[in-house]
Amino acid sequence: MERAEAEKRDAGDPLRSFRDQFVIADEELIYLDGNSLGRLPIATRDRLREVIEDEWGTGLIRSWAGWMDLSRSAGDLIAPLIDARPGEVIVADSTSVNLYKLAAAALDARPDRTVIITDDDNFPTDRYLLAGLATQRGAELRVVRSDPVDGVSTATVAAALDPDTALVCLSHVAYRSGAVADLTAITAAAHAAGALVLWDLSHSVGSVPVPLGGSGADLAVGCTYKHLHGGPGAPAFLFVRSDLQSTLRQPMWGWWGQRDQFAMAPDYEPVEAIERFLVGTPAILGLTATIEGARITAVAGIEAIAAKAQALTAFAIELSDLWLVPLGFELASPRDPQRRGAHVALRHPAAWPICQALIAAGVIPDFRAPDRLRLGLAPLYTRFADVYDGLHRLRELVQAARHLEYPTAPARVT
Amino acid sequence: MERAEAEKRDAGDPLRSFRDQFVIADEELIYLDGNSLGRLPIATRDRLREVIEDEWGTGLIRSWAGWMDLSRSAGDLIAPLIDARPGEVIVADSTSVNLYKLAAAALDARPDRTVIITDDDNFPTDRYLLAGLATQRGAELRVVRSDPVDGVSTATVAAALDPDTALVCLSHVAYRSGAVADLTAITAAAHAAGALVLWDLSHSVGSVPVPLGGSGADLAVGCTYKHLHGGPGAPAFLFVRSDLQSTLRQPMWGWWGQRDQFAMAPDYEPVEAIERFLVGTPAILGLTATIEGARITAVAGIEAIAAKAQALTAFAIELSDLWLVPLGFELASPRDPQRRGAHVALRHPAAWPICQALIAAGVIPDFRAPDRLRLGLAPLYTRFADVYDGLHRLRELVQAARHLEYPTAPARVT
Repeated sequence: MERAEAEKRDAGDPLRSFRDQFVIADEELIYLDGNSLGRLPIATRDRLREVIEDEWGTGLIRSWAGWMDLSRSAGDLIAPLIDARPGEVIVADSTSVNLYKLAAAALDARPDRTVIITDDDNFPTDRYLLAGLATQRGAELRVVRSDPVDGVSTATVAAALDPDTALVCLSHVAYRSGAVADLTAITAAAHAAGALVLWDLSHSVGSVPVPLGGSGADLAVGCTYKHLHGGPGAPAFLFVRSDLQSTLRQPMWGWWGQRDQFAMAPDYEPVEAIERFLVGTPAILGLTATIEGARITAVAGIEAIAAKAQALTAFAIELSDLWLVPLGFELASPRDPQRRGAHVALRHPAAWPICQALIAAGVIPDFRAPDRLRLGLAPLYTRFADVYDGLHRLRELVQAARHLEYPTAPARVT
Repeated sequence: MERAEAEKRDAGDPLRSFRDQFVIADEELIYLDGNSLGRLPIATRDRLREVIEDEWGTGLIRSWAGWMDLSRSAGDLIAPLIDARPGEVIVADSTSVNLYKLAAAALDARPDRTVIITDDDNFPTDRYLLAGLATQRGAELRVVRSDPVDGVSTATVAAALDPDTALVCLSHVAYRSGAVADLTAITAAAHAAGALVLWDLSHSVGSVPVPLGGSGADLAVGCTYKHLHGGPGAPAFLFVRSDLQSTLRQPMWGWWGQRDQFAMAPDYEPVEAIERFLVGTPAILGLTATIEGARITAVAGIEAIAAKAQALTAFAIELSDLWLVPLGFELASPRDPQRRGAHVALRHPAAWPICQALIAAGVIPDFRAPDRLRLGLAPLYTRFADVYDGLHRLRELVQAARHLEYPTAPARVT
């Protein structure tokens, strides 16, 4: 496989001009971790400067007139990316806090049921939060087995459902393997059992189509600092299907969910809209960045992004089969392009030292315990040539055994 | 009263040079709302530019090495302002979310008790959140009467305490009147009854000394975008007395509270430290601004800040007695300087239109329903001359009845 092949694919890439919208400070660096922290868009850098210097610095408190609705505006920008309607999505708080709000609201909506279903490959914060809710409410957290490569199957979830199931909470795209769960089929199975479904879209928003509306899914949360380029610790989003909004109630009765907020009335009366899932004052700098980042994704369009994600990950798998499998790597992501997000996982017993050696070689991947190298191929700024060069450097360093110079395991953070 | 008197006081102000550390875009504007949104420090503007352009833009995911501990670093900077020790304070999430975490943890720590005490002048989000928790747990929210001017009295709280009281949750400085509650005496009374105490320090941090350590108070939360200059929607802080940390558990079991976070272990095991009160990924831009803003406050020192707050509010009251009371205004803050924060409230039946006319005259106050003009006199950048000029313009416009040109009530936001 020659580099010219990668260059040819780049030349034919309909999204290739989007890379120009991001700050690329070091053209030599190959960044394969946009699914952990997306790059800084140029528009975001400029807009943040305005918000900080003009709106905060000069406008002061008067600028709240423009900031009050940013949570909703950001949500409305994200809505078309996940097949939701305006008014069904709002941005504030972290993904974890939003998951807690919606899982708690769902359990309250099924008071006679005591089972929560999730899977053992779900992201840790999801599993921990659900375990906490189960403990606090005397419910059972039923953790089904997922395939570490192919993800959670519809049959497995269907087999775990019973008339006592209140909530099914899963990730749409698995954080390690990138496997895509069948959101439509699992939602239908859960609904047939009378349960509600809460999807974590952290790795799918901005990388694959998310059929929330088409499937009739109830609830979702997701992260904005990955494929939506919202920046470190940017606020997360949550989705509540419109017909559920007036009946669901989240447990944190904060003033940003209150009807006629500045009347400061004695009793909490949540607004009859998505804002009832707000709690306290949202992070305006993070919201600003989320809006600019999500706008670029919306302009590119999720269909084009998903097509490029499939092509990039297919190319990475092709190169891995040629170059890396002979060196002891094993693909840990689905081979079916329809069943992958925008990242690919490779297993290797020495994944941790290889990861360190690769960073030293100017390629930034991600490591996921215990033995996976995760390559995030963010479609808006990752080129086929980046995939080629990155995997080429990876092959070279493992062939030269340069990873043996690095510690065999990460320092333990306690 | 001549303007020269104000100028004389400014000349003798030991904190007068701190104003130079803030962006003052419009020297004609008199900003009396620093207790709602603090001004932008120059250091914050510069540091945010570095974090956005260099750390995010260039460093990308590698910058997390420096970001991981920002919540703790910010907490350690705030600790001396509230008589707390390093490791007792952490910054993340909103004040409302933090209040929920700690109130829930406190109720769990007193499982045999079913009463929560607060007061009717507490900030709405506090009252709503406590009402929510009471409803969810079948507890009683006992709302005691506060004096709208002098705030909540120790005797009133003591009279409401009984052996069934799990938690007392009050604001240290009242959001409308600025009245300071007797934190030490109320904490002692609550402890004598076996209850825990949770203080909301939103209006006191950075304006008055907060004797958390000296009083043995259990829990506290507070806002950073007022007197700590953290910017719009900056993350809030929470305090948990060190000896309580290992026994208290908040309900949102997120991965940022997990021991050895990136091991992604199957079970939630919260770290034995203040980080167990974290949930999801903290807002890095907001944390950056909070750190820079809190640093200026820490350098100035809370004793000097509190002394200037007393002098500024005393001057405002002196001018109000001379100029405004004859025009129908009534002081709605304590006259005892030891019992005031850094803001003063003035009641007037036409407070809303007067507020609008005052803004048009280049003075920014705050309005608090139903009939209060709130003047925030942030000690680090408000001059005695600003107080003089601001109240002078207020007197002139009411004398000329210019407020009659404005709507009599705010538009209702639903």
